[in-house]
Amino acid sequence: MGTNRLEAFSDGVMAIIITIMVLELRVPHGTELIDLKPLVPKFLSYVLSFIYVGIYWNNHHHMFQATERVGGAVLWANLHLLFWLSLIPFVTGWMGENHFAALPTALYGVVLLMAAIAYVILQFAIIRVQGKDSILRKAVGKDWKGKASVVLYVAAITSTFFNAWIACALYAVVAVIWFIPDRRIERTMK
Amino acid sequence: MGTNRLEAFSDGVMAIIITIMVLELRVPHGTELIDLKPLVPKFLSYVLSFIYVGIYWNNHHHMFQATERVGGAVLWANLHLLFWLSLIPFVTGWMGENHFAALPTALYGVVLLMAAIAYVILQFAIIRVQGKDSILRKAVGKDWKGKASVVLYVAAITSTFFNAWIACALYAVVAVIWFIPDRRIERTMK
Amino acid sequence: MGTNRLEAFSDGVMAIIITIMVLELRVPHGTELIDLKPLVPKFLSYVLSFIYVGIYWNNHHHMFQATERVGGAVLWANLHLLFWLSLIPFVTGWMGENHFAALPTALYGVVLLMAAIAYVILQFAIIRVQGKDSILRKAVGKDWKGKASVVLYVAAITSTFFNAWIACALYAVVAVIWFIPDRRIERTMK
Amino acid sequence: MGTNRLEAFSDGVMAIIITIMVLELRVPHGTELIDLKPLVPKFLSYVLSFIYVGIYWNNHHHMFQATERVGGAVLWANLHLLFWLSLIPFVTGWMGENHFAALPTALYGVVLLMAAIAYVILQFAIIRVQGKDSILRKAVGKDWKGKASVVLYVAAITSTFFNAWIACALYAVVAVIWFIPDRRIERTMK
Repeated sequence: MGTNRLEAFSDGVMAIIITIMVLELRVPHGTELIDLKPLVPKFLSYVLSFIYVGIYWNNHHHMFQATERVGGAVLWANLHLLFWLSLIPFVTGWMGENHFAALPTALYGVVLLMAAIAYVILQFAIIRVQGKDSILRKAVGKDWKGKASVVLYVAAITSTFFNAWIACALYAVVAVIWFIPDRRIERTMK
Repeated sequence: MGTNRLEAFSDGVMAIIITIMVLELRVPHGTELIDLKPLVPKFLSYVLSFIYVGIYWNNHHHMFQATERVGGAVLWANLHLLFWLSLIPFVTGWMGENHFAALPTALYGVVLLMAAIAYVILQFAIIRVQGKDSILRKAVGKDWKGKASVVLYVAAITSTFFNAWIACALYAVVAVIWFIPDRRIERTMK
Repeated sequence: MGTNRLEAFSDGVMAIIITIMVLELRVPHGTELIDLKPLVPKFLSYVLSFIYVGIYWNNHHHMFQATERVGGAVLWANLHLLFWLSLIPFVTGWMGENHFAALPTALYGVVLLMAAIAYVILQFAIIRVQGKDSILRKAVGKDWKGKASVVLYVAAITSTFFNAWIACALYAVVAVIWFIPDRRIERTMK
Repeated sequence: MGTNRLEAFSDGVMAIIITIMVLELRVPHGTELIDLKPLVPKFLSYVLSFIYVGIYWNNHHHMFQATERVGGAVLWANLHLLFWLSLIPFVTGWMGENHFAALPTALYGVVLLMAAIAYVILQFAIIRVQGKDSILRKAVGKDWKGKASVVLYVAAITSTFFNAWIACALYAVVAVIWFIPDRRIERTMK
């Protein structure tokens, strides 16, 4: 099977996720600057999640550039990734509405952690289909970015017991690490 | 007519169905673990429906791999399938909100049953277009999966008169049966 | 310019319109059959609108089969059609919530009428681009379906002053007229 | 990297933005003409935003017609544009609900201004990839439309301190300027 429809479906789901998050920014009733104030934490959590979904779309795009054929395992690994991404609007809303309180901020990290693990599983599934000359395996290499992210997510989730702002800082750090699209794949494909 | 646009439109509709279901998981007001408790049945019904829509997308994908040209009847048979799938968010929400009460759980089964019947009709419509050498007909064979699903849905709907959890178990069984993508089509195409 | 992206964007908008209408079917609080009763008119108006959007998607699909290149005028004529279609969820909700009261039912017809006119404008815009050997012009011919629809919509809107059910019956008649996809285009293309 | 998936993802996001704005038009409870009255400003702001998103889709479409290959910088510049566009439903709703009050109307302009700047950044990013023989650079030329828009947006935002209707008029002027799709690109490509 080709990857066209898998890519189109994933694009659709990620486009909807990134867009419906904005529905959590409910229109305020007043018309003064002060009426926007309660929206600030919601807006910040929206920006963070927008960047995260953007990163996932970007990396997904790169990964499937290096993939030509897929089977049933890849289809389900991909749906598994989309499942965790689909929970991002919920945890974003809960975290934003409660001004980055401990538990919502921890749960946000749990969903990000599960999405990261789902991404690694998807990578493995593709590499297995491609066999021992897998382009993706060469491109990914030791995958230090993936490993570092998992460590940072676990650290962030733990830190919410002390101070949720440490967690937010760590989420931002992971975003920065991934912000630069995966040159490894472009390089290896050449 | 080619199948590109039919596939793209169906992908769009299924991507939206799978994503808007998460909007039923309303952000709770508190920030304690206890505040998440009322969401547990909603979350479970979301997971079940996510898997079901994933299965439909997967099988739809496989079915149209074996299809090259379509006519008006296939377009409408496809829209008919999408209609029943579009009701899944509603019945998922009703079943989840009411902790798998009898009637909502039965109605959930009715929608799944109607979607299964719509899928069979779509299959027939494609086979008719393909004529007597239909790849899809060979691939589907006696379609024991399709027949077993219908029987199990009817059993599940009936069982809600006694105990709705039997129905939930049966819905899970059908999901497991279909979880493995339809190898028949891949095999026949080779 | 090719038509790929125009078709993809239109598919996306129509897929969303057809799916978000179901959000008007709010999950009821009770779990008895009686709790579903207030949803019946909403459900009926949903079914009608689903069929209408399905018809538009179908005809749009056929029309662009006979179209290869488009310019700025076609892009805007297409957006104009999508604008009126995007109002269908609103009028569907208003009509369904108020049990097919006179004014909501009339407004529903106005939106359908405007969409029909927008469709004719789009047809003209494409025919103008194709020049005097336009396949679409030959396929459309005298366009009695288009003309009959406009007459029936106007009749339906007028009839709401007396009895809104006449209007509903007329909306159903137009749907039946268009239900059969436009064979003219398939025939002419051969 | 090709531009297919970037275009598909952007189409998806813009299709959702243009469609979910209509959800702000809440179904009124009454069935008289008077019950629609409070919706008039919301409807007007919806029409304005629909046209704006339509213009962005149109120009985006034209711009990527003149673009064949993209890299990481273009992907992020595009996501940056989509971010500002994704805020349009929020500011549209706030402006419409408050009958074009000063601050909401100013914020609407700020989001349009940021989107315009994001569009220029995206243009630069593409031109840089294309190198010194860039088709897009020739097509854009001095980009007086882009510059005029920025000036008009700033003027509109400032004018809300005196009278918000001046701002609305200026937003309409910018829309008219851009309404005609960018012939420059079509001309240069020939």
